[in-house]
Amino acid sequence: MNHRMIFYLTAQIVRGIGVLLLLPTIVAGIYGEMPSLIGFAVTSACLILLGTIVTLFKPQNTSVYTREGMAVVACSWLACSVLGALPFVLSGEIPNLADAIFETASGFTTTGSTILTDIEAMSKSCLFWRSFTHFIGGMGVLILMLAIIPQSDTRMMHLVRAESPGPTAGKLVAKMSTSVRILYLIYVALTAIETVLLLLGGLPFFDAITTAFSTAGTGGFSVRAGSIADYDSVYVEMVVTLFMMLFSVNFTMYFLLLSKKFTQVFKNEELRVFLSICAVSIILITINIIPHYEGSILTALRYASFQVFTIISTAGFASADFTEWPFFSQMILIILMFVGSCAGSTGGGLKVVRVLVLFKSAIKEIRCILSPRSVVVVRCDEKPVDKEVVHGIGYYFIVYMFLLAASIFLLSLDEHDITTTVSSVITCMNNVGPGLGEVNPAGNFADYSWWAKLLLATDMLLGRLEIYPLLVLFTVRKK
Amino acid sequence: MNHRMIFYLTAQIVRGIGVLLLLPTIVAGIYGEMPSLIGFAVTSACLILLGTIVTLFKPQNTSVYTREGMAVVACSWLACSVLGALPFVLSGEIPNLADAIFETASGFTTTGSTILTDIEAMSKSCLFWRSFTHFIGGMGVLILMLAIIPQSDTRMMHLVRAESPGPTAGKLVAKMSTSVRILYLIYVALTAIETVLLLLGGLPFFDAITTAFSTAGTGGFSVRAGSIADYDSVYVEMVVTLFMMLFSVNFTMYFLLLSKKFTQVFKNEELRVFLSICAVSIILITINIIPHYEGSILTALRYASFQVFTIISTAGFASADFTEWPFFSQMILIILMFVGSCAGSTGGGLKVVRVLVLFKSAIKEIRCILSPRSVVVVRCDEKPVDKEVVHGIGYYFIVYMFLLAASIFLLSLDEHDITTTVSSVITCMNNVGPGLGEVNPAGNFADYSWWAKLLLATDMLLGRLEIYPLLVLFTVRKK
Repeated sequence: MNHRMIFYLTAQIVRGIGVLLLLPTIVAGIYGEMPSLIGFAVTSACLILLGTIVTLFKPQNTSVYTREGMAVVACSWLACSVLGALPFVLSGEIPNLADAIFETASGFTTTGSTILTDIEAMSKSCLFWRSFTHFIGGMGVLILMLAIIPQSDTRMMHLVRAESPGPTAGKLVAKMSTSVRILYLIYVALTAIETVLLLLGGLPFFDAITTAFSTAGTGGFSVRAGSIADYDSVYVEMVVTLFMMLFSVNFTMYFLLLSKKFTQVFKNEELRVFLSICAVSIILITINIIPHYEGSILTALRYASFQVFTIISTAGFASADFTEWPFFSQMILIILMFVGSCAGSTGGGLKVVRVLVLFKSAIKEIRCILSPRSVVVVRCDEKPVDKEVVHGIGYYFIVYMFLLAASIFLLSLDEHDITTTVSSVITCMNNVGPGLGEVNPAGNFADYSWWAKLLLATDMLLGRLEIYPLLVLFTVRKK
Repeated sequence: MNHRMIFYLTAQIVRGIGVLLLLPTIVAGIYGEMPSLIGFAVTSACLILLGTIVTLFKPQNTSVYTREGMAVVACSWLACSVLGALPFVLSGEIPNLADAIFETASGFTTTGSTILTDIEAMSKSCLFWRSFTHFIGGMGVLILMLAIIPQSDTRMMHLVRAESPGPTAGKLVAKMSTSVRILYLIYVALTAIETVLLLLGGLPFFDAITTAFSTAGTGGFSVRAGSIADYDSVYVEMVVTLFMMLFSVNFTMYFLLLSKKFTQVFKNEELRVFLSICAVSIILITINIIPHYEGSILTALRYASFQVFTIISTAGFASADFTEWPFFSQMILIILMFVGSCAGSTGGGLKVVRVLVLFKSAIKEIRCILSPRSVVVVRCDEKPVDKEVVHGIGYYFIVYMFLLAASIFLLSLDEHDITTTVSSVITCMNNVGPGLGEVNPAGNFADYSWWAKLLLATDMLLGRLEIYPLLVLFTVRKK
C-alpha cells in the first residue's frame, strides 16, 4: 500500500475540514459566543496549518489503487469524526471526548443519534456545527457512492451496477469532476429551496438552515429539544417530510429529470419499490395508530407519514414518540430502518435496491430448489442482473449481519435492557438516529459508557461507508 | 406432481402415527386415566383405519421426484402436528384446538415451547405423549437429514455435502435402509443409556424415560412444572447436560467411532467449532453470572453449562431462569439459538456447519474486495467447499432471515412486548423452546391468540424442515 499517498490525501481532507470550520467560527462571532469562538478558531487554524504543511510534500508515487482508495475514505471519515469533535471539547460544550466523538461521528455519518440531554443549552455555533456536519457528511457520501466507487473496478460496483436503467451513476457525464459538480449543484439547490420554504413557514433563519442541513444529509440533528415537534406546525412537518423523501431518492433521478428523461425515472424499479414501501407502511401504521390519536384519521396520517419518511430516509427527526405506539407500528419502523433509502442518495440502511435484489434472489433460490431443472434469473429494471452482482449483495448482507450481531454482543456488556441495546445498534449501523427503549425519539445515548459510545460511533462509520473501506484498516495484506 | 403418490405416502405416515399412539393408550390404561384412554384409543383406531384404507390403493405411477419427496415430508409433518393433537382435544386435557396443535407441533418439531400453564395437572398419558412426540420427531429428523436428503440430487445436499470428512452421511453403508437402521440403533441406544443413568439418579421410571425422550429429540418438554430444576439434583443436571451434548453431535460421528475411525472424529471441523463455541460461551457466562450467584463459581458454572447446552442443542430444558441474568449472558444465549447444533443431529437452529461456512465466506468476500486479484476459497475440513454449496448456504440464510422478519412482523400484530415477540419467533424457528420476556423459561406461550399460536407452529415446522419442503406446498408449478 502507498501509505505516503494515503497520508497525503487524508491531510487534504483535514485541511478541508479546517476551512469548513471557519463557518461555525463566524457563527460564534455573530452570536458573540466566546468559548465556542476560541474552540472553533483554534481547531480550524490547527487543521489548516497541519493539512497545509503535510500537503506541501507531495509523494513521488501518486498511484492509488482500490485498497488505497478505501483506506483514504476510511482515514478521512475517522479523522473528521475525531478532529471535528475538538471544538466541542475545547469550548467546553461537550467536555467528554468520547461524547464529542460520538456526536461528531453521528453528524458526519448523518446518523443523528445524540448524547445531549439538554440540546437548547448548547451555544448556537455548536448547534450550527452539529447540523453542518450532516450537510458535509451528505456531500461526502454522494461523492463516495456516485462518483468515486463506480470509477473503480472492484466488486463494490455491485451496488451501482445493480441499479437504475440508462446512464449508470458514474456516467452522468464523461468526466468525474463534472459529475461531482452537477451532484453538488442539485444537493445545494434542494437544500436552499427547503430553507426558503421553512422560512416561509415562519421559522427563524437559524432554525430553517440548520433543519435544511440536517434534512439534506438525512441526518436528523435538530436545534430544538423536541425536534420538529417543537415547531408544532403541520406546514413545517410537511415540508420536512417532502424533503426527507426527495433526499432519499437516487440522485441520478434528478439528473434524468433535468435531461427530460421522464420515462426512465417513472420506470425505475428501485424508486417504485421505495415509494410503494412508504405508501404501504403509512397506510398500515395509520390504521394501527388511529385509536392512539382518539380516532382522528388525519392526525394519525400526519404522524404516520412523518415517522415513516424520517425512518426510511434514515433522517431520524422526531414529531412523535413512536415507542408509545402499538408494537406493530414499531416493528414496521424497525424493518424500515434496515431497508433504508435508495442507493445513491444521502440516506443510510441496507438500501432499497439491495433489499430488492436479496428478496428476488431468495425467491429465485426457492424456485431453483423446488424445480431443479428450471432456469431462473434475477431481474432488475427488466434486465438480468449479473450473477456476481447478486452474490456480492448476498455476501454484503451476510457480512452486515455478522457485524450487527457482533456489535449487539459487545454492546450488551454495557448492561442496558435488550430492546435498548439491540435498537441502538440497528439505528446506528443504519444511520437512522432514534431507537426504542432508552434511546427512543425523546431519549438519548448519554447513559452509555465511553467505550459503548465509541463502539456505536464505529457502527455508524461501518454503516455509512458500507463496511468494506473501514475493514481495510484492520487487515494486513499478505505479500 | 404425482399427487396420488404424495397422498399414499402421507397415509402411510398417518397409519404409523396411529400405531405409535397405542403406546400412550397403554400408558393411559396403566394409570387408569379414562378420558385420556378414550382420546388416545379413538384417535389411534381412526388413524390406523384411515391409513390402511388409503394404502390399500397403491398408485400405478410410483415415481417420486424431489418435489414429491419434499411435499410428502411437509404433508407428513403437518398431518402429525394436526392429527397428533386430537387426543389432547378429545381427552379434554387441552380443549382448545389451536393450543393442542401448537403443543403437538412443538413436540414433533422438537421445539419444546408450551402453552400449558399447569403442566402437572395433565394426565400421565398426555405428558407421556408430549415427550414421546419429541422422540418420534427426532427420529423423523434423523432420517430426513441423514438418510433421505443425501440420496436426492437437489441443491439441498449442500448441508450434508458441506459436512464431515470421510464417508458422507448418506453413504454410511451402501443401502439406505441399512443406514436408517444403524442410525435408529444409535439413537435408541443413547436414549436407553440416558434412561438408566437417570434411574440411577433416583428419578421415577416415568420421569426418567420422558426426560430421556425429550433429550433425545433435543425437545425440552418436561413432566414437571419447574422442568429439570424441580429434581434439584446436580447429578440429574449433569446427565441431561451430557446427553444434550451427545444428541447435538452429527450422528455420522458415532458411526465413525463404531468403525474406530477416531482421527476423523477428532479432526471434524464442525465438531471442534461446536465444542469451542460451547466452551467459550460457558466461560463467558460463568464469569458474567458469578455475582448473581453470590460469588459461587461452581454454582455459576453449573447453571452456565446447563443453559449453554440446553440452548445450543435447542433442547430448551430449564434449570434456571436466564432472563434474570445480566443482559450479556442473555445475548450469548440468543446468539446460540441461531447457531444451533451440528448438522445431522436432532438439534435445530441454523446448524454449526452453516454458520461456519457463512463466516468463512464473509471473510473470503472481505478479502476479495480488499485485494481484488487474490483467489480465496472457502475450506471446510481442509477441503475446498464447492462454490454452489457456499452460495446455497448463503441463500438459505437470506431466505431464513426474510421468513424470520416476516414472522416477527406478523406476530407483532398480537401486541406482546417487543422482546417477547422477537424472542418467540427466534426460539420457535430455531426449535429451541424458551425465549425472553413473557416466554422466559418459567413462562409459556398461553397468552398468544389462536392465530399467533398457529403462526409460531408454522415457524417451528419451517425451522425443523429447513424451510424448503414446507414452501413446496405454497407454490404452483409452471408447466
